[in-house]
Amino acid sequence: MNTPNLQLPGNELGLFTDLYELTMSQAFLRQGMTATATFSLFTRTYPPNRGYFVSAGLEDVLNFLSNLSFSAEAIDYLRVTGIFSDDFLEYLSGVRFTGSVRAIPEGRLFFTDEPAVEITAPLIEAQLVETFIINQVNLQTILATKAARCVWAAQGRGIADFASRRTQGTDAALKMARASYIAGFSSTSNVLAASLYGMPPVGTMAHSFISSFASELDAFRAYAESFPDRTVLLVDTYDTIAGTWNAVQVAKEMESDGHKLVAVRLDSGNFDELSRKVRTILDDSGLDYVKILASGGLDEYELETLVKDGAPIDLFGVGTKAGVSADAPWSDMAYKLVSFDGRPVMKLSPDKVSLPGGKQVYRTKDMNEMFVRDIIALEDEALPGGLPLLEQVMKDGQRTQPSAVLEEIRVRFQEDFAALDDRFKVLKNPPRFPVGLSGKLEQLASQVREEALGINVSDSD
Amino acid sequence: MNTPNLQLPGNELGLFTDLYELTMSQAFLRQGMTATATFSLFTRTYPPNRGYFVSAGLEDVLNFLSNLSFSAEAIDYLRVTGIFSDDFLEYLSGVRFTGSVRAIPEGRLFFTDEPAVEITAPLIEAQLVETFIINQVNLQTILATKAARCVWAAQGRGIADFASRRTQGTDAALKMARASYIAGFSSTSNVLAASLYGMPPVGTMAHSFISSFASELDAFRAYAESFPDRTVLLVDTYDTIAGTWNAVQVAKEMESDGHKLVAVRLDSGNFDELSRKVRTILDDSGLDYVKILASGGLDEYELETLVKDGAPIDLFGVGTKAGVSADAPWSDMAYKLVSFDGRPVMKLSPDKVSLPGGKQVYRTKDMNEMFVRDIIALEDEALPGGLPLLEQVMKDGQRTQPSAVLEEIRVRFQEDFAALDDRFKVLKNPPRFPVGLSGKLEQLASQVREEALGINVSDSD
Repeated sequence: MNTPNLQLPGNELGLFTDLYELTMSQAFLRQGMTATATFSLFTRTYPPNRGYFVSAGLEDVLNFLSNLSFSAEAIDYLRVTGIFSDDFLEYLSGVRFTGSVRAIPEGRLFFTDEPAVEITAPLIEAQLVETFIINQVNLQTILATKAARCVWAAQGRGIADFASRRTQGTDAALKMARASYIAGFSSTSNVLAASLYGMPPVGTMAHSFISSFASELDAFRAYAESFPDRTVLLVDTYDTIAGTWNAVQVAKEMESDGHKLVAVRLDSGNFDELSRKVRTILDDSGLDYVKILASGGLDEYELETLVKDGAPIDLFGVGTKAGVSADAPWSDMAYKLVSFDGRPVMKLSPDKVSLPGGKQVYRTKDMNEMFVRDIIALEDEALPGGLPLLEQVMKDGQRTQPSAVLEEIRVRFQEDFAALDDRFKVLKNPPRFPVGLSGKLEQLASQVREEALGINVSDSD
Repeated sequence: MNTPNLQLPGNELGLFTDLYELTMSQAFLRQGMTATATFSLFTRTYPPNRGYFVSAGLEDVLNFLSNLSFSAEAIDYLRVTGIFSDDFLEYLSGVRFTGSVRAIPEGRLFFTDEPAVEITAPLIEAQLVETFIINQVNLQTILATKAARCVWAAQGRGIADFASRRTQGTDAALKMARASYIAGFSSTSNVLAASLYGMPPVGTMAHSFISSFASELDAFRAYAESFPDRTVLLVDTYDTIAGTWNAVQVAKEMESDGHKLVAVRLDSGNFDELSRKVRTILDDSGLDYVKILASGGLDEYELETLVKDGAPIDLFGVGTKAGVSADAPWSDMAYKLVSFDGRPVMKLSPDKVSLPGGKQVYRTKDMNEMFVRDIIALEDEALPGGLPLLEQVMKDGQRTQPSAVLEEIRVRFQEDFAALDDRFKVLKNPPRFPVGLSGKLEQLASQVREEALGINVSDSD
């Protein structure tokens, strides 16, 4: 088979699952356990230096649920493993997602313990989709959150996503482009992502471009000739200052042809020092309109330092460290059964406790529209004065809202981020945003815990 | 569009590229720069605590190169961006990869500065494929290397890949399954990966399975009924010791039906302490054949401690931290032009120097077949007594070897890993395996450096 990462037919999506989702489903089917279940997707703890999450990934979840099925080839494969019964495979060949989904919309901020997504469906359907749902919402939330931190650190300077070459795989590259755009990046270098998501593609030139010409000056001239109105010259292949003087020369030649050099790009060395020297050379040459782009090893911590120190950099290209969320490449996001057949349930394993029952999150704001606190409550509880965060997005297996528009998600993020007090945005050890539980939820949790321990642990030694 | 991560048609693969690959290509075409170029893919520095790399990803590279093309829709998209000239788009619509590839085979160990892959092709073709090639070889090498460290730490105990739910996207999940199998994992939980790569799928049960039944005992019995000969019981949903006693009861019931419980699984708490208690309970109950599987938050560091301390754990399920290579989620792998039109070239940017010219790596072994050192030499240099690591795998755009067989790659890794002295395998701050440059390569590097600086920097201030 060819490049499975990009060429899987849609009807094999069902197989993107942990084996145990299928074996558990067979056991459920055999026991006639087809009643309705609710699963809750949430994150228990903040990764290092995180104090908020940016919701992202729901669009892929809804597409996945809308298309869930197992092809004849998938069923044949499962049969050959020898693991499954014929009646289960017969059931599986006809399975579709018929349940409902409530979720915090993409772009919205949320916090630990808050359900980002809740799935309510016949038990097997809700169980089968676990692996894909965690995989996508976890990844996209991590990346959107990392990008939001970069945007915060850049304080208004533009940021482009240059991460594609070193994200963890092709899927992550596409999702990084989209997630970072939600959080305020201006563009992506990934052409496929730009075409799929309707985002602006952006690019400059590589060192290989420079070194494939006999001289840097030849390379600069060749590029400017092809792209007279969108040229960004990479000046560090041999020596950044010498390269800048070559860029000045080409910029003057472009001026005489009625064009303007857009920017020069620094990709190595001490950005603070070099950007000041380069800015001076450009300004002294009458090229104050030429912008400075810096890229290479940048993350939110570097950005914050450069911006605070006043380095004259107009645009940042952010790559690897943001694209893998290098300082926090994973979270403990989990998908837990919270209700089955009308009975609230919870997990009691050490450090892995979950809260029982379907839920809603209510957010209160102050008079200035700034966030004050969140309360996690039961789904059917109404807390006056709070804005409910989870919205119904799917019912009976059908979307109840049109597909999300990326620009609207981006605006939603901007609004939410503006309403979060700056002290929660500091890059290191931010304070915890206050999130509480409603009285009814606390009561239910202790009741369910006592019942579960009574049944399952009372006779242990 | 639906779930672009898994549903991209093969003919859009060409668009998985940074925009600058396309803009540079247009400039090359305009300048008539269609001569042959060689690019080298290598890693400059070791990520933290790494002292070797396991080659992985070549199979996807070769599939990508074999299928490189731009569909009419892709060309239409590029036209609409307004960036490209008609003659370039006309050229692009007919582009195929017609070059050759030399590479270190998958499964083989390699070290910093050594080219894992070298691409020789008409300049534009070699440039266009950069983003995908780095993305895949970087990811898969990182994951195979992380998995090799886990296998080393487990000292013969089995390891299953449980990472799919928290890898960075779906592509990474599939590649983790394959890369970890190359490095000696026994199986994967990802059913799609198992079906695509012909690997054994493996699975147990989730906490949700337990909590969807009225009691843990009911859940255990239901699973055993469906899978009488492949049951692994998860015992920590409420309390690990109480859960183990429930497992003992079900194991006895299984025995009376002529079946055997395979294992119990611990997923939280202190694994060392719990595994000893659980082992005692099982042994005292006459269930010495029941194995203990531990999973949850494990990586090579945890594995090493548990194994050294003698925790009676038979199998490990390794997930998130391995699947994102949490302590080293990226490397500085780069794809650099080393030769164009017969002229060796190199990059001189600070900390980003590359070595000029096409290369070969020669490995010497001692009398016991143990690795002694590697020498990086020019491609056409023959170093007597050294084993050349790079093999020709594609010529004129056609594979020159049959597609890699996963089991053979796995054996190749085992053989290489056995030939690397144990001191290079320590998990923290390993010493550097000796890698040198041939005299001819050193000479060429200083010659090219002087020439480049002479042309490009002499007139700088």
